[in-house]
Amino acid sequence: MVYLSPMFDLPPADEPFTFDELQKAARNHGLPLEAMRYDITPAGLHYLLIHFDIPVTDAASWRLAIGGNVDQPLSLSLDDIRSRPVRTLAVTMECAGNGRVRMPNRKQSQPWIVEAVGTAEWTGTPLAGVLADAGVKPDSVELVFSGVDRGVQGDVEQDYERALTIEEAMRDDVMLVWAMNGQSLLPQHGAPLRLIVPGWYGMASVKWLNRIEAVTEPFQGYQQAVAYRVQAHEDDPGEPLDRIKVRALMAPPGIVEFPSTRRIVDAGSVRLTGRAWSGFAPIVRVEVGVDGSWHEADLDPAPGPYAWQAWSSTWQAERGEHLLSCRATDAAGNTQPLEPFWNVQGMANNYVQTVPVTVR
Amino acid sequence: MVYLSPMFDLPPADEPFTFDELQKAARNHGLPLEAMRYDITPAGLHYLLIHFDIPVTDAASWRLAIGGNVDQPLSLSLDDIRSRPVRTLAVTMECAGNGRVRMPNRKQSQPWIVEAVGTAEWTGTPLAGVLADAGVKPDSVELVFSGVDRGVQGDVEQDYERALTIEEAMRDDVMLVWAMNGQSLLPQHGAPLRLIVPGWYGMASVKWLNRIEAVTEPFQGYQQAVAYRVQAHEDDPGEPLDRIKVRALMAPPGIVEFPSTRRIVDAGSVRLTGRAWSGFAPIVRVEVGVDGSWHEADLDPAPGPYAWQAWSSTWQAERGEHLLSCRATDAAGNTQPLEPFWNVQGMANNYVQTVPVTVR
Repeated sequence: MVYLSPMFDLPPADEPFTFDELQKAARNHGLPLEAMRYDITPAGLHYLLIHFDIPVTDAASWRLAIGGNVDQPLSLSLDDIRSRPVRTLAVTMECAGNGRVRMPNRKQSQPWIVEAVGTAEWTGTPLAGVLADAGVKPDSVELVFSGVDRGVQGDVEQDYERALTIEEAMRDDVMLVWAMNGQSLLPQHGAPLRLIVPGWYGMASVKWLNRIEAVTEPFQGYQQAVAYRVQAHEDDPGEPLDRIKVRALMAPPGIVEFPSTRRIVDAGSVRLTGRAWSGFAPIVRVEVGVDGSWHEADLDPAPGPYAWQAWSSTWQAERGEHLLSCRATDAAGNTQPLEPFWNVQGMANNYVQTVPVTVR
Repeated sequence: MVYLSPMFDLPPADEPFTFDELQKAARNHGLPLEAMRYDITPAGLHYLLIHFDIPVTDAASWRLAIGGNVDQPLSLSLDDIRSRPVRTLAVTMECAGNGRVRMPNRKQSQPWIVEAVGTAEWTGTPLAGVLADAGVKPDSVELVFSGVDRGVQGDVEQDYERALTIEEAMRDDVMLVWAMNGQSLLPQHGAPLRLIVPGWYGMASVKWLNRIEAVTEPFQGYQQAVAYRVQAHEDDPGEPLDRIKVRALMAPPGIVEFPSTRRIVDAGSVRLTGRAWSGFAPIVRVEVGVDGSWHEADLDPAPGPYAWQAWSSTWQAERGEHLLSCRATDAAGNTQPLEPFWNVQGMANNYVQTVPVTVR
């Protein structure tokens, strides 16, 4: 494993960031990595990716329409939805574009480094029950979920829309949610109602949800057929993204230098901590790399089927410059790669994090 | 007024952004400008500038020590502080570095464009009462406020510390606060206790506050004597920053293109809205610029002495490319400049915002 730069393992000077990228970074924010200390990410620290503007919504008059290829179209108020069976689930959510800037020739989009993640306790009601009431007809193949956030992407004016197969949508843990960490949804997280698809990248968990439509042909909307695909080259239709790839992150140790984010650590025994998660299976191993030499970390049990797992390791830090890494493996046998996973849209790059540290 | 670029009124391509800047932008976030629609900024949308890491704190064991040149040193628990007279005040806070990237040869620091602002309702107790109990001795000249957030800046390891003159600190509206928007402070906003200095740039409102010390000589700490100064050149000791300079911002109209942030508006009557504020005096005038021609906007009364004022204006939008601006003037006669205010640290650049719009 060769690191090309002490601060960044791809040469950043060759690919400076643009004003458009900065504009996205100024409004959509990641998790400050030290906030991995919280099992549940406090409000305002959870990552946020909003394609268009935060829309104006009103909880009192909000309706969710369920229609299309169903026996009984429904129009539900927020009170209707809240009166259904209630469930709370801790879910680690990650943006599919996390790691985008850590690849050469990156796409111009949200310039995530590694921090587009968070874990929240979402409270809502299983979607399956609502779908059962509407009676999705047997020849339906997908459900299309629409938010009221509207804008232009790829020259297409659109509401933000994504689809799930009937089977995926009927999973017990797919929910219509109205609360996050015990409080009504904040505007930026989809108030008053959103979808949560545990285990999947965040693009599936449609915010500001006001329509669900059963369809008999696969959905060809922009965010399904064009965006959020892993393309090998520009003409490749690509594969759709779904479940979150395995990843571990470290809370950088010691104290930080402003504005460089260089870490400064005192020599001696240093406790390294972080989190690991996968949308495919529980994490079974986290390794910590010190200057390219790997050691297994202690791993806490999963607090729930969709929440990140804490890990820790002790490092005997010696004076000098060091490069720390961490790498997770899940029970399905997936391990993080040591090289960037390049693709046209800069998606799902779960390449290992590196943390340069000065030990004094 | 000449705009050099349709997306940015200084040529961004000549000065691309660095990885260090991106790392700051990924964790410290601004206000999404459409969120100016809320009188009080919801949790997680208020701007955030954290120099070092968010520290680990514990409300139950927290103590605030008041010492130095006082008659009666105090050590107060959070309960002690909460049992004092309670006051809630809406305060617009802005980062002194707001506008930094909108000047040539900018300093490498937090790359704010224009969005480092927010308005919250802060609940706490006037600092003056606590100081009276401690009995600040008459020969004291300043009070030094220290947080527990620690790091390195300018090669100096430090807790974040700032001072106020005794006169400024004794102002009725300077408060020790434990709640924001009716809820306990979030970790990133200084939990469990912070200072709020209404009307001043955010650097004065020390977060994670655990020490106040009365001193008989002006404080020479890094954040006072080196940082947060307006320097004309590198060898200039500069002038300290204090009150917030006058500024208006517009919520960009129409819908947005992702990821460029280009705005798209339908031809016809368009309502333009935004906010304006100044730490010196109430706002008396907001002008809206359309392609360099200025018109006076309607201005709402101030909801409080330290909270931003809403403004609005109607624009008859005609097809084509347009550049919108807004410019505020306060009762003290301060007006926003039409050229960037250059200084070494990139501080207090309240140069007018420009919003490129495509009308269709």
